[in-house]
Amino acid sequence: MEASHLIWKEGKSRELLKTKVFSIRETESRSPKGESRVYTIMDAPDWVIVVPVIETSRGRCFIMVRQWRHGSGELSVEFPGGVMEKGETDEEAAKREFEEETAYRASSLRRLGDMRANPAIMSNRVHFYLAENPVPLSSQNLDEDEFVDVEHIPVEDVTGGMGKPPFVHALTAAALALYMGRGL
Amino acid sequence: MEASHLIWKEGKSRELLKTKVFSIRETESRSPKGESRVYTIMDAPDWVIVVPVIETSRGRCFIMVRQWRHGSGELSVEFPGGVMEKGETDEEAAKREFEEETAYRASSLRRLGDMRANPAIMSNRVHFYLAENPVPLSSQNLDEDEFVDVEHIPVEDVTGGMGKPPFVHALTAAALALYMGRGL
Repeated sequence: MEASHLIWKEGKSRELLKTKVFSIRETESRSPKGESRVYTIMDAPDWVIVVPVIETSRGRCFIMVRQWRHGSGELSVEFPGGVMEKGETDEEAAKREFEEETAYRASSLRRLGDMRANPAIMSNRVHFYLAENPVPLSSQNLDEDEFVDVEHIPVEDVTGGMGKPPFVHALTAAALALYMGRGL
Repeated sequence: MEASHLIWKEGKSRELLKTKVFSIRETESRSPKGESRVYTIMDAPDWVIVVPVIETSRGRCFIMVRQWRHGSGELSVEFPGGVMEKGETDEEAAKREFEEETAYRASSLRRLGDMRANPAIMSNRVHFYLAENPVPLSSQNLDEDEFVDVEHIPVEDVTGGMGKPPFVHALTAAALALYMGRGL
């Protein structure tokens, strides 16, 4: 049962900016008390993130990617993932991004959950998958502007290191919460 | 030791849009191979998120807020938090947001870690705090356009429910990963 004293009614929108990766709009919305307000919102395609688990001589590891991030202007170690392409399901996108970035293929993908990247100001969703029993492929298949190191990192180094460099990506932490919360 | 084959050099920026909550710029950046590319980046103030823990007759609970989110156009149950104001430290902002939204005061705040909200396209940070032994105040102190229900939710309902409505906020999940990863 939804709480009507919390629910807003969305009205007209006006586009402020359109770029290759997202667009920005202003949207009028009517409060539970009937007052009108204007909010600024980012629309973007959905994203996928894959939590790849592999058993190694050092114990259970995650397969992670180390890459430069242009928003933060620093290196970040993250779960593989990316933007869904037109016509893809989220599972197809997860499989593709995992293969392209890490040069591994998952024997099976298991859905961990869906979230909003930032429901306060963004409309898009993030879809999370677990990749089990990954098998190595011949090589990465990166975009021209992608430079990505692939690393096996023990699970406990990630759970204990999150929130300090290089484990600074909040969406990687969100994926980790699903991994831990499912008792995996 | 940083990996020079991954590092980009940031060049000139050009503002595309400025709104009340964030601004958007285009930035030129030079790849590890010396090629120039343009990226679109969102700048916003830093955010704070508080994980408030309280012992109740139903066991250990989180104090959470249920509110409408204008980006997603739906209700979301989240840890309290918000935007840092000018002149505030992140700890002061965490204390203020926690009190305003929940009408509780923390006896102590403990830093859990810092992340980037989305280092791919955003420059700002999120600061995470644990609020222990919270004591109730007289009432919430909300902005005019905030309508917020405060709820005590058992920890295991949140860890098990994350990634399904109403637990859809990726930054709340990121905070939960820190809580679980610290063995709390």
